[in-house]
Parts: sequence; structure tokens; C-alpha cells
Amino acid sequence: MGRQKIYLDKLSRIFQIRNLLLRQALAECLGTLILVMFGCGAVAQLVLSKGSHGMFLTVNFSFGFAATLGILVCGQVSGGHLNPAVTFALCLLGRDRWRKFPVYFAFQTLGAFLGSAIIFGMYYDALWDTPDSFNVTGEHSTAGIFATYPGKHLTTVNGFFDQLIGTAALIVCILAIVDPYNNPIPQGLEAFTVGFVVLVIGLAMGFNSGYAVNPARDLGPRIFTAMAGWGMEVFTVRNCWFLVPIFAPFLGTVIGVVVYQMMVGFHVEGEVRDKLEAEAQNERVRLTNVTTNDHNKEKEVS
Amino acid sequence: MGRQKIYLDKLSRIFQIRNLLLRQALAECLGTLILVMFGCGAVAQLVLSKGSHGMFLTVNFSFGFAATLGILVCGQVSGGHLNPAVTFALCLLGRDRWRKFPVYFAFQTLGAFLGSAIIFGMYYDALWDTPDSFNVTGEHSTAGIFATYPGKHLTTVNGFFDQLIGTAALIVCILAIVDPYNNPIPQGLEAFTVGFVVLVIGLAMGFNSGYAVNPARDLGPRIFTAMAGWGMEVFTVRNCWFLVPIFAPFLGTVIGVVVYQMMVGFHVEGEVRDKLEAEAQNERVRLTNVTTNDHNKEKEVS
Amino acid sequence: MGRQKIYLDKLSRIFQIRNLLLRQALAECLGTLILVMFGCGAVAQLVLSKGSHGMFLTVNFSFGFAATLGILVCGQVSGGHLNPAVTFALCLLGRDRWRKFPVYFAFQTLGAFLGSAIIFGMYYDALWDTPDSFNVTGEHSTAGIFATYPGKHLTTVNGFFDQLIGTAALIVCILAIVDPYNNPIPQGLEAFTVGFVVLVIGLAMGFNSGYAVNPARDLGPRIFTAMAGWGMEVFTVRNCWFLVPIFAPFLGTVIGVVVYQMMVGFHVEGEVRDKLEAEAQNERVRLTNVTTNDHNKEKEVS
Amino acid sequence: MGRQKIYLDKLSRIFQIRNLLLRQALAECLGTLILVMFGCGAVAQLVLSKGSHGMFLTVNFSFGFAATLGILVCGQVSGGHLNPAVTFALCLLGRDRWRKFPVYFAFQTLGAFLGSAIIFGMYYDALWDTPDSFNVTGEHSTAGIFATYPGKHLTTVNGFFDQLIGTAALIVCILAIVDPYNNPIPQGLEAFTVGFVVLVIGLAMGFNSGYAVNPARDLGPRIFTAMAGWGMEVFTVRNCWFLVPIFAPFLGTVIGVVVYQMMVGFHVEGEVRDKLEAEAQNERVRLTNVTTNDHNKEKEVS
Repeated sequence: MGRQKIYLDKLSRIFQIRNLLLRQALAECLGTLILVMFGCGAVAQLVLSKGSHGMFLTVNFSFGFAATLGILVCGQVSGGHLNPAVTFALCLLGRDRWRKFPVYFAFQTLGAFLGSAIIFGMYYDALWDTPDSFNVTGEHSTAGIFATYPGKHLTTVNGFFDQLIGTAALIVCILAIVDPYNNPIPQGLEAFTVGFVVLVIGLAMGFNSGYAVNPARDLGPRIFTAMAGWGMEVFTVRNCWFLVPIFAPFLGTVIGVVVYQMMVGFHVEGEVRDKLEAEAQNERVRLTNVTTNDHNKEKEVS
Repeated sequence: MGRQKIYLDKLSRIFQIRNLLLRQALAECLGTLILVMFGCGAVAQLVLSKGSHGMFLTVNFSFGFAATLGILVCGQVSGGHLNPAVTFALCLLGRDRWRKFPVYFAFQTLGAFLGSAIIFGMYYDALWDTPDSFNVTGEHSTAGIFATYPGKHLTTVNGFFDQLIGTAALIVCILAIVDPYNNPIPQGLEAFTVGFVVLVIGLAMGFNSGYAVNPARDLGPRIFTAMAGWGMEVFTVRNCWFLVPIFAPFLGTVIGVVVYQMMVGFHVEGEVRDKLEAEAQNERVRLTNVTTNDHNKEKEVS
Repeated sequence: MGRQKIYLDKLSRIFQIRNLLLRQALAECLGTLILVMFGCGAVAQLVLSKGSHGMFLTVNFSFGFAATLGILVCGQVSGGHLNPAVTFALCLLGRDRWRKFPVYFAFQTLGAFLGSAIIFGMYYDALWDTPDSFNVTGEHSTAGIFATYPGKHLTTVNGFFDQLIGTAALIVCILAIVDPYNNPIPQGLEAFTVGFVVLVIGLAMGFNSGYAVNPARDLGPRIFTAMAGWGMEVFTVRNCWFLVPIFAPFLGTVIGVVVYQMMVGFHVEGEVRDKLEAEAQNERVRLTNVTTNDHNKEKEVS
Repeated sequence: MGRQKIYLDKLSRIFQIRNLLLRQALAECLGTLILVMFGCGAVAQLVLSKGSHGMFLTVNFSFGFAATLGILVCGQVSGGHLNPAVTFALCLLGRDRWRKFPVYFAFQTLGAFLGSAIIFGMYYDALWDTPDSFNVTGEHSTAGIFATYPGKHLTTVNGFFDQLIGTAALIVCILAIVDPYNNPIPQGLEAFTVGFVVLVIGLAMGFNSGYAVNPARDLGPRIFTAMAGWGMEVFTVRNCWFLVPIFAPFLGTVIGVVVYQMMVGFHVEGEVRDKLEAEAQNERVRLTNVTTNDHNKEKEVS
């Protein structure tokens, strides 16, 4: 065992990356890979088994707990965003630096790309077993396993609104969970709670277009499908629908941040600030008194 | 980033509300909004997808975890009642002031109103896609997405009893969870446990009329549907059913409080009181002895 | 508010029960009531809605989380057994006094009786709405809502074995959870973990006869159904099946206790005992040395 | 009660095993027994009830929470691997000794064998009630209750890849959960989190061949079925499929270990090592300075 430890230690030193941002980006990549691998895997299982091994509820559970697991894997390193909208929200609030945003976005998208590639490989036989399986539209289309497409009833305007509300709801809940002034859950349970948020969004907001609420989770797999055989139709279908799950979430993030801060965040933050300022004020008064006393004493002495 | 922080701090100072009751009311409003948005959203998904994207179990999960999330968002500020019946129970037990009750009731109803409005907007296309969608009764009626209506088999008397039992069960469980003398779960898990309570009530008591057990959750969305196109029929249908989920829960609360206090609460509370009084008694005896001793000493001295 | 507090305090003093065993029995009664109310409520919802508002999975969830909630309500007072088999196991291991056993059994059965009565009242209209609803056997029989009956494929011998295994599995898991020497979960999560045990037993062992694994949970509701209109057939049907879920669980408890203690319990307990004895031994050696030294010193001195 | 305690203590001393590895092996055996008893029990319930008492989701829940319970029962003694692939991963990383590996593998397989035997006994009547129930292939085959068999669409190559990915995903998540340097969850919640991992793997990766991802869980029940009436066909069917869930998981483990260590593990480990080395360096510099100072002082003194 001694030699194994030495060898492992050597390996660890060779592959150790010391650049913090790169380490964080790699961790986000792995976390988002896990999110998409398990999430889209559940959709694949539902679609390819034609319902015998899944239903919409299993997709919801899988995306929810996949978010939990993705955050657990990378959270200590990168914060476990898994979603450019979350990174955007934390940058908006000044809790993360803006230069993180493009790097995280890129690596999250890369992770989502890789996650869908793994699922493609895993269900390769099952995909070929489905008639017309590489269609983007139609009864047996399988493009929806990887990226999201709007339901037949949905107009683009309503679809935009759908993604906007979904992301706003996600962001309100996540801000409450990680707000340093409104500390509702024990340390270490954040990942589980975010998983419940994703689960509930899927249970309540999944019918219109499949609740992407995450630009990276949608764009990465869509690029993969374009390359893997479904073709450029994945971008052009339904008036370039693919733009909606990229842009609507960021607008939803802004709304979520404003709603949470206006209705809860600013007030709990302000309460803490008021308390600190009151203490500082008291301290200053005390010091002034001390100084004055000293002055008086000096006077008396002189 | 420096300038962003200064700007955020300025914003925070402008919008900070210092009135405690108003802050609490706003938080309750946001919490109940989240409860109804996710809860009724799941009903909408079930009804509008005609079962392909939901079933009754998904509604139960969604209402349960939506309660958890609503409590997490507002709990540190307002206590996270989300339900006038809970506020009523805590007032009955002297743990909250009575003047909170009407304010919370109003803002909880407002939050429920807004939550159902969001779901209405989100599923606007899907609603119009359903034939006869703005009917209150009938096969394709969609009014049940927002407010609760009794099943065909249900008489008003049994419906009243149903809401009464459901709320009593809810209150017994919540009182056990938040009882300061019967402290069964680790700090910070209350919201999750209440979520399980709501989930279980839905699994076991949802068939009769959809387990409102919450006057605000039912009244707010009902007012919204009356305004949004379903008309005053939402109030008049089935002999003014809407009064049942408003009044039965309060009676159920009284029963729940009495049952819990009689069977568990008074005894654990009394045990703590007995211990405190015994200690106080011992202390008094000791002090008396000391005084007597001092007296004796004084006597001796004199 | 001052007067309300005084009044509440007076009430609390009037109704406070100081007898520990009676308080524990009342708490067990309420806990088992909650278990059966939510558990059988879910069965009622499944049966009476003919599957539209439930499925076997919802029954499993409901019994599981109902066990959690029942334990949370009464656990701090009575230990939260909810099941005479659990009381029996703890008595067998010397962790509870044997005289508790009959008292707990009686009040647990009473609680189960009351819980099923509440569900009967709640779904009264729905029961009458079902044709032939008060039959014990047959297609539309509803007796299975309250007590358990064997499936058509099941012989009594296999049914006995089924209850025996189910209870043994329950007891092995519960002993691991509450073993003071094998402390696998954080304080306060026992109730949730027991809920998972009950859930899993339902998922894996529910097909034969509905996983009573609890004499009180089965007997109480069965007595209720005999009185409420189903008649004495609930006892006589299938060769007095009702005796199986009363006696098999106790035998299963013995097996569960033996298996757990043989494979894990005795060894972790022994490890702690070995350590304590080793320390005591060291202490004795040290003391002997000290004495000897003192003796030697004395010798030297003399 | 006094005599009972003495008797229990005597029993405990008789049956106590002091050999650590044997105790650990017994605990692993019981843990894997629980995993397979509940997991395969849920498959049996699904198959034998023809879907009335289960669906694929209940199997996923049951395997997930069965893993949790198995780990809880044996985790404090043996680490709660329940899976030779997990033991292999920890040996690879130098956290467990290699000689544990064959012992754990054997006892995990034994536990899985016993667990499936219990389920066979429990559902004996139901098995005989199914026509052609002891077939390995065909419409009514029941061999899949115990061991895994590939779906009709699956080639052996894709099946190998399926098991490889599933195990790699499992190992990445488990390594993150138990990594001493990347400590994402509160102490004591590891078992629950691993349960979620197993659940999600079932939701997303269960369609191809039933997600064994565990050589012992598959081999033990397969040996049992070969002996219990299904015959040697369980080994020969589909080009000796049984070899895939034995060998692919170990290769998947290697991939999982490499992926996790490369993307997260080595860097968090290296960060801690860098910090320790920096401190040691500082300490050495300080000591050198002290020595130098002393030297100088000595010089001055001299």
C-alpha cells in the first residue's frame, strides 16, 4: 500500500491545476454534465421505452435530484451554479465577479454537450430501434430528448413568458436559499433544497415547453443534436425557438432578483445593516465620551 | 465591482421597509404566491395536458414542496404561515398577536391571487386550446385549476366535515413540529416537515374536494377566476360552496389545537413548568435557610 | 394578550396529566391515529376514486410519511413506536419495561380504531356512492380500505411467512436506526428514516396482503369495520386471516432482533464494552501500582 | 428486568465476534441482503402484480432507499459499500486495503443471494400463480425479478457501455460524497445521498438492461435463480450476458475514479496539501530564524 500511496501522490501533483478559475470552470463542467446526463437520460428512458420505463414525473424527479448531485459534486469548488442564469443573478447582486460569467457559461454549455453525448451513446441501440428516430418534429421525433421544443399549443410570446416566469421562480427560491442574511436551512442542505426547487418547477411549469430555465442545459445538447444527426433543423424549427430558452431566462433572472430583493432581501439585509450601524454609533458615542472624559481629566489635571 | 456595490447599497437603502408588520405581510404574500403558483401550476399541468404531463400524485408533491419553498422564502421574516388557519392557531395559543391575523389573512389572499394570475398567464395558450375552457362545471371545466370544487358524490355537510378534519390534521402536525416544549426535529428542517404534512394530506384527503385546508389559498384564486373570465358562477355554484373552505378550516383549527394540547401539548408544557417551579422552590428554600442562618449567626453574634 | 395567557396557563394546569405512563399511552394513541388516518385515508382515496386520485405508490408514500409524522407528534413523549411489534422488540432488548407493552398495545389499537373512524366519516358520502360498498369480499369490496386481507393467490402459510419477513425487515432497520452503539444518522432524523423504511416495505412487500406488519394498525380498524357495517365477516373471512397480522409480526420481531444482534448489534456493543473494560483494567492496574508504590514508599520510610 | 439484562449480556458475550474483517464482512452481507431484498422485492411486486401494485418508478424508489437503509444498517461497521465496485474504487484510491476486496465481494454476493432467496420465499405463491413463471425468456418470464437481462433492442457492446457509464456515474457521485477534502454534505447524510444517486441512475439509465451497476447484486441472485428452478439458462442466455454486469462495472469504476480525480478530486486535495506545505515551510523558516537568532545571541554573548 505504501507504493500505491506514493504513486497516487505523484499523480495528484502532476495533474493538479492551481488556476482557481480553471478549476471552477472544470467543476461547473462536470456538475452540468451530471445534471444533463441524468436529466436527459430520464427523458430518453421515457421516450424510447414509450412510457413503460418512465413518465413525466420520473423526468421531474431525475432533473431535480440530478441538480442536487451536480451541485454536490462541484459546489465546494465552484459554487454549483450549473446554470448561467444563476451565475448571472449572483453577478447582478455583486456576490460573484462579472468575468466569471462568460467562463462559467462556456463550461456549463460544454458540460451539457458532453452529458447529452453520453446519453446518446448509452441509448444508441434504442434510438436506432425507434422508427424515424432522427426527426426533429413528428410523432416519433426524438430531438426532444436532448433540447426543449415548444408544445403544439404554444405561441412564441407565451413561450417566452413561460421561460421568463420559470426562471424568475427558480431565482427567487435560490436567492432565498443562499441569502446570507435570510438563512433558512442548515449548512450543507442547499443542494437538496435546490433539487426540490427544480423538481417543483418541473411538476408545475413543464407542460408548455419542458422547463429548460437554463440556457446552457438547452444550448449544449441542441448543438450536440445538430452534429449527431438531427441537423440544423434543431435551430430553425418553430421560428428559431432555440433563442427563447437562451434569452428569456436572463430576463427572468432580472425579474426574480428584483422581486426577491424588493419583497424580502433588502429588508433583512437592511435590518442587519441597521443593527451594525447602531452598534457602530454607540461605539462612537462611547469613544467620544471617553475622549471627552480624558480631555476633562487632562483639564482637571492641568 | 466597487461601483456596483455602492449602487446596490443605495438601492437597498431606498427600498428598505422598516415597519416590521408590513415586511412580514410582504413576505407572507410572496410565500403564499409561491405556494399557489407551484401548487395550482401542477393542477393546471395535469388538467391542460389531459394527464400526459401530470397525475394527482404530481399535484400532491407540488403542493407539498411548494409549501416547503414558500416557508423557506419567508419563514425567517414572517414565520412562514402561508395559511390563515395557521396564523389563527398561533394566535389562539398566544404565540402571535391577534392584530397580525387580519393583516396576514389579507396578504396571504393577495399572494394567492397573484400566484394564480401568474399561472393563468403562463398557461394562457393552453387554456384557450381547451374546448369550453372557461366553464366552471362540466367535463372540460378548468375552474378547478385555481379554486377547489366539491366532487359529485359530496354533500355540503360531508364537505364541511372534510375541510374540518383536513385542517385539524394539518394543525396537529404543525403544532407538534413547532412546539417549543416538544422539539422533535433539528432546527431548520421545519419547512421540509411541513411540506411532508401537506403532501400526506393530499395523498389521503384529496379526493372529496381537493384539500384546500387554507382559506387564503382558496379565496384568492377564486376571486381571480371570477375576474378573469369564469364569472360569478365560481361563487354561486353548488350552494355557495366557496364558503366551506373559508369557514371550516377555522373550526378545524380549534379542534386541532384542542386535540394536540389535550393529548400532548399541555403535558410536555406542564412538565417543563413543574421542573422550573421545583427549581424555584428549591432556590426559595435555600434562600430562606441562608436568611435563617444569617439570622442565627446575627443572633449568635449579638 | 395578558388575559389570554393567564387563561391558557389555567387550562394547561387543569388538563395536565402527571402520570408518565398515561401520558405516553395518550401520545402513542395520537401517533397511531395519525398513522392510520393518513395511511388508510390514502387507501380510501385510491379505492373510492377508482384510481383517478391515487395508486399503490401513493398508498406507500402516505403510510411512510404518516409514520414519520406520527413519530414526530408523539416521539418525545412516548418514543414513537406506533406498533406493538416495535414495543415488543425494545422490551426484548431490555430497553423498555415489559409492563409498557400491554398498555402501549391497547392504546395503539385504540388510536388505529379512531383513525379509521375519522376516515370513515370523511369518506362517508364516497363510500355510499360505491355500489355494494359494505362488502368484505368481491369486486367492489371496501373492507380493504381499513384492515388488510390476503390476495387471491396467497395461502395462509405464505401469508404468515409474508408478515413474518416484513416485520423482521422493519425491525432490523429500526434497530439499526435507534441502536445507541451503532449511531448512523444525525439526532432528530430517526422519524424520517423510519418513514423511508415503511415506504420501502410497501414498495417491495405490499403485493401479498398489504403489508400490515403491525398488529395494532390492523386490529383497530378491523374492529371498527366490524362495528360500522361490514359485520363479523371481517374476522371470519379466509380462515380467520385476521389472526395472521396479529401473531406473525411478533414472531417476525424475534427473528429481526436475532438477525440484527447476531450480524451487527452484539459486535458493536461488545466493542464498546471491551473498550470500557480495558480502560477500567488500566485504571485498576494504575491504582494497584500507586498503592504498591505507596506501600514501597511507606516501607522505605519506615 | 435485572435478570433479563444479565442474560442479554451473557448472550452478547457468547456471540461477540472480535475479528474486525469478519465483522465487517458480516455487516456487508446484511447490508447487501437488505439492498437486494427490498430492491428485487419491488421488481417482484411489479412483475407479479402485472403492474397493479408497482411500476418502474417504484422499483427505482425501492432500490434507492434500499441502498440508503443497507448503508445505515452496516455503514458504521464496514463503511456500507454494498457493491464490489465501490470497494474497488476505494482500494484504487488507497483508502481501503486490497485484501478487503475479495472478502467484501464474496460476502456482498452472499448477501445478495440470501436477499433474493427471501423474496423468492415471500412471493412463492404469487410466482406459482404466474403461467410459465420459471422461464428465463419470453413474455411471462420472471428471471428478471432477480438478476438483470438486456432489453430486446440491446447489443452486447452497447450493454457493456451501458453498465460502464452507469457505474462511472455512480462512482463519480459517491466519490464526491465521501471525498474527505470536498465535504459537501453534513455528517450522517451520506447514506441518504447515495440513495438519491441510485434512484437517479434508475430513473435515467434503467431502460437498457435494468441498471445492475453492481457485480454482487447481479451475480448473487443469478446463482440463486440457477439453483431455484430457472436452470443454467440464466447464465447462457444472450451470449453469456451475465459476464457484462460483472466486468463492465469494474472498468466503469476506473473511468469514474479518473474523471472525478481529474476534474475535481486532485485539485481540492492539492489545495489542502499546498496549504499544509506552506505552513510547514513557514514553520521551518521561523525555526531557522530562531536558531539563527539564538546563534547570533550566542555570538553576541560570547
